Amino acid sequence: MRVELYNDGEGFVELVDMMGTDLTIVNSARVSFGKHKSELDEKDKKLIKYLVDHKHTSTFEHNVITFRMSVPLFVRSQHMRHRTWSYNEISRRYTDVDISFYQPSHFRTQHASNRQASNVDELIDPLICPKNISGGNKASYLIKDHHKKSLKLYEDLVENGVCREQARGVLPQNMYTEYYATVNLNNLLKFVNLRIHAGAQWEIQCAARAMLQIAKHAWPVAVEAFMMRKGEQQ
Amino acid sequence: MRVELYNDGEGFVELVDMMGTDLTIVNSARVSFGKHKSELDEKDKKLIKYLVDHKHTSTFEHNVITFRMSVPLFVRSQHMRHRTWSYNEISRRYTDVDISFYQPSHFRTQHASNRQASNVDELIDPLICPKNISGGNKASYLIKDHHKKSLKLYEDLVENGVCREQARGVLPQNMYTEYYATVNLNNLLKFVNLRIHAGAQWEIQCAARAMLQIAKHAWPVAVEAFMMRKGEQQ
Amino acid sequence: MRVELYNDGEGFVELVDMMGTDLTIVNSARVSFGKHKSELDEKDKKLIKYLVDHKHTSTFEHNVITFRMSVPLFVRSQHMRHRTWSYNEISRRYTDVDISFYQPSHFRTQHASNRQASNVDELIDPLICPKNISGGNKASYLIKDHHKKSLKLYEDLVENGVCREQARGVLPQNMYTEYYATVNLNNLLKFVNLRIHAGAQWEIQCAARAMLQIAKHAWPVAVEAFMMRKGEQQ
Amino acid sequence: MRVELYNDGEGFVELVDMMGTDLTIVNSARVSFGKHKSELDEKDKKLIKYLVDHKHTSTFEHNVITFRMSVPLFVRSQHMRHRTWSYNEISRRYTDVDISFYQPSHFRTQHASNRQASNVDELIDPLICPKNISGGNKASYLIKDHHKKSLKLYEDLVENGVCREQARGVLPQNMYTEYYATVNLNNLLKFVNLRIHAGAQWEIQCAARAMLQIAKHAWPVAVEAFMMRKGEQQ
Repeated sequence: MRVELYNDGEGFVELVDMMGTDLTIVNSARVSFGKHKSELDEKDKKLIKYLVDHKHTSTFEHNVITFRMSVPLFVRSQHMRHRTWSYNEISRRYTDVDISFYQPSHFRTQHASNRQASNVDELIDPLICPKNISGGNKASYLIKDHHKKSLKLYEDLVENGVCREQARGVLPQNMYTEYYATVNLNNLLKFVNLRIHAGAQWEIQCAARAMLQIAKHAWPVAVEAFMMRKGEQQ
Repeated sequence: MRVELYNDGEGFVELVDMMGTDLTIVNSARVSFGKHKSELDEKDKKLIKYLVDHKHTSTFEHNVITFRMSVPLFVRSQHMRHRTWSYNEISRRYTDVDISFYQPSHFRTQHASNRQASNVDELIDPLICPKNISGGNKASYLIKDHHKKSLKLYEDLVENGVCREQARGVLPQNMYTEYYATVNLNNLLKFVNLRIHAGAQWEIQCAARAMLQIAKHAWPVAVEAFMMRKGEQQ
Repeated sequence: MRVELYNDGEGFVELVDMMGTDLTIVNSARVSFGKHKSELDEKDKKLIKYLVDHKHTSTFEHNVITFRMSVPLFVRSQHMRHRTWSYNEISRRYTDVDISFYQPSHFRTQHASNRQASNVDELIDPLICPKNISGGNKASYLIKDHHKKSLKLYEDLVENGVCREQARGVLPQNMYTEYYATVNLNNLLKFVNLRIHAGAQWEIQCAARAMLQIAKHAWPVAVEAFMMRKGEQQ
Repeated sequence: MRVELYNDGEGFVELVDMMGTDLTIVNSARVSFGKHKSELDEKDKKLIKYLVDHKHTSTFEHNVITFRMSVPLFVRSQHMRHRTWSYNEISRRYTDVDISFYQPSHFRTQHASNRQASNVDELIDPLICPKNISGGNKASYLIKDHHKKSLKLYEDLVENGVCREQARGVLPQNMYTEYYATVNLNNLLKFVNLRIHAGAQWEIQCAARAMLQIAKHAWPVAVEAFMMRKGEQQ
């Protein structure tokens, strides 16, 4: 199962593997009775709802999921601030195959009052003109051109003997990276809760929503209970 | 798969679920190439050995395992000091069914010089005699009797209205507890490495060895590579 | 600074060391400006309130505190489930000095409907009578007597050669233990929030409240902001 | 205390705050005796050495240190893979003041056999020539020029209404960032051990060595014992 991000054929979140079902949560919560149920009934669904509402979230830690991520570096850095995940990333010290960049065709405008935010509903591709010169180029064109020039400089540096680990310093943060990311359901939901929030950068919101969609497919009752939980708005 | 501990029909480590194979390690290490191999070859085995020897252990974090544990409280406490696991334990605040105790028939002697150690090869069941009185009872009998009396006191307290969460304070640390415990392969091997060591208490050594046996069955190449690793003796 | 627990001269939470002030939070939040302010003004207080309300809690992780704890084993086990703390505990495998027990003179009754709860306002010390025999003993007396007998059995076992690490299995969970516990302010407040809740066992509520009192003394603005925060009732 | 990195007046590791002394380690290891010593003697130094050699490293977790870091983004990303630290970073979604770049005047060559390594002793600044054209420019010049153009494009984008969080995508990974980083001594030494290794990228080796120098000043006995420890070469 793979969910595309950004409609550019490059960004995606993909399910690699998962462990446990909605039943695992019930069975771990009822470890006391030594019973391993094999079918989820209505009583179990209520128990899961109860566990969510009362924050007995340790019962959500025996369900685990691994994603393969393909996102720009700046999304990767925001993701990896979360210290409860396990990560394995492609090393640009090691390889220089398949370098590509995140290059949107339109851009969000800066929010007027919130210095950290952008306007999701206001997309622009402004014409950028050199001083005193008629004409100019669209932002999207200039960015693509900048990516191309950055990659060319990188390749020139490597070709002329500069080590990859130093040469890559010229590559922009729009560069795509790939990694494996593993997390349990408790910490996945904490991550999703923070990152689907309007205050998060749109590009990581997309990744969080893709994870949520995959998780909902894997553990429908638990994820539904979390989305409908009391006491805290999402 | 269940491995019995202590030969008393009570202690055990049981496999509940697991995620990933030896191949998962290889695939996560090679995330850079975007290849998902489906069969493990000799080259892959060498890569796993290389990853172990060079401590690239983040590649071992996408393999995850859940155990169901039945061990005495004092083993549980030693286990739960490890902060990289997820735990779900039976709550003695909630239930008082199935209370049982760890009661060996023979005991290790105190180590002469190492204040924290015991002699695994010297098993005794000493006669313990009240002062100035002939006769006496074997240690194993006195301990079983103490467990019985402790449980009787607990039951009397509960029957007379004392809340379970306070009444349980009289129950000895030999009491069995049950819990789910989930961990990734990297942290499992760190745990095993510390706890199969001769300096660890014998009772938790048994649990660590049982985990190792189950893990070896699940991920034979990775666990073998770890056991044979360079640079550090076990 | 030491806060007594349980009025028994045994249980306590004591401040060992701490790092940072309310200003540290402000300075870490404003790392961007490279300014290290040395006095807290009203604007800073508002910033701290804002950080709490918007869950920018990573700014609370550069304030750290170490407690010395003296609590019964069952409180210790509840505490050590929290995996964001650092612990160093007295080892009963190593020493048998100063063994003492938590022995209240009155007990909470079992909650009628909530199987996991007790009634804090209903304290009893019931008379417990052997069957068919007139007379009987108060619960508090029987528990003290049980502790004494448990300790006597432990000492007899050790005296007769049984290793300390096995002998201690007969000691009840009311036994006191001591440990160092270090945590940052973010994780301290998460712990306190969970453990001062009415659903937590009273004995650990006391410990959580003692920590809160010490933390409030150390970081008055931040702790006050946390206690008054929006969006989630305590 | 501040240690300069890279001799460019930009990169540094600076001590913000610290908690505990060498004595703290001794006192936490001896929590059992309830003694708080106030002077370190020879016996204590031996104990610290023993704790290091026997990996009783939990006693090193009550000593905590906060650094202020100024390093290029790619060093920041390597650092933040370590999940036992607390971080607070300047947000480029929020501010665009003081943007500067890591721009060495000479570069390491690529290692011939180890794809991930560079030659620390072989520094070059190659002339890079456009095809079919005589002349050319030194790598160091081209990189500085690239940084300047990248910053110009970023500024043009922001000036023309593109939100900062998207505009920053064009800035290269050589860009400097600043953050607070807090860690306990146990995890600091694990980090240092991995990152002063010849296999680590030189730029993060410099940061690790700077931390070690500051830590040695703060906790001379413990850090010395760690550097001289048995059983594992650094």
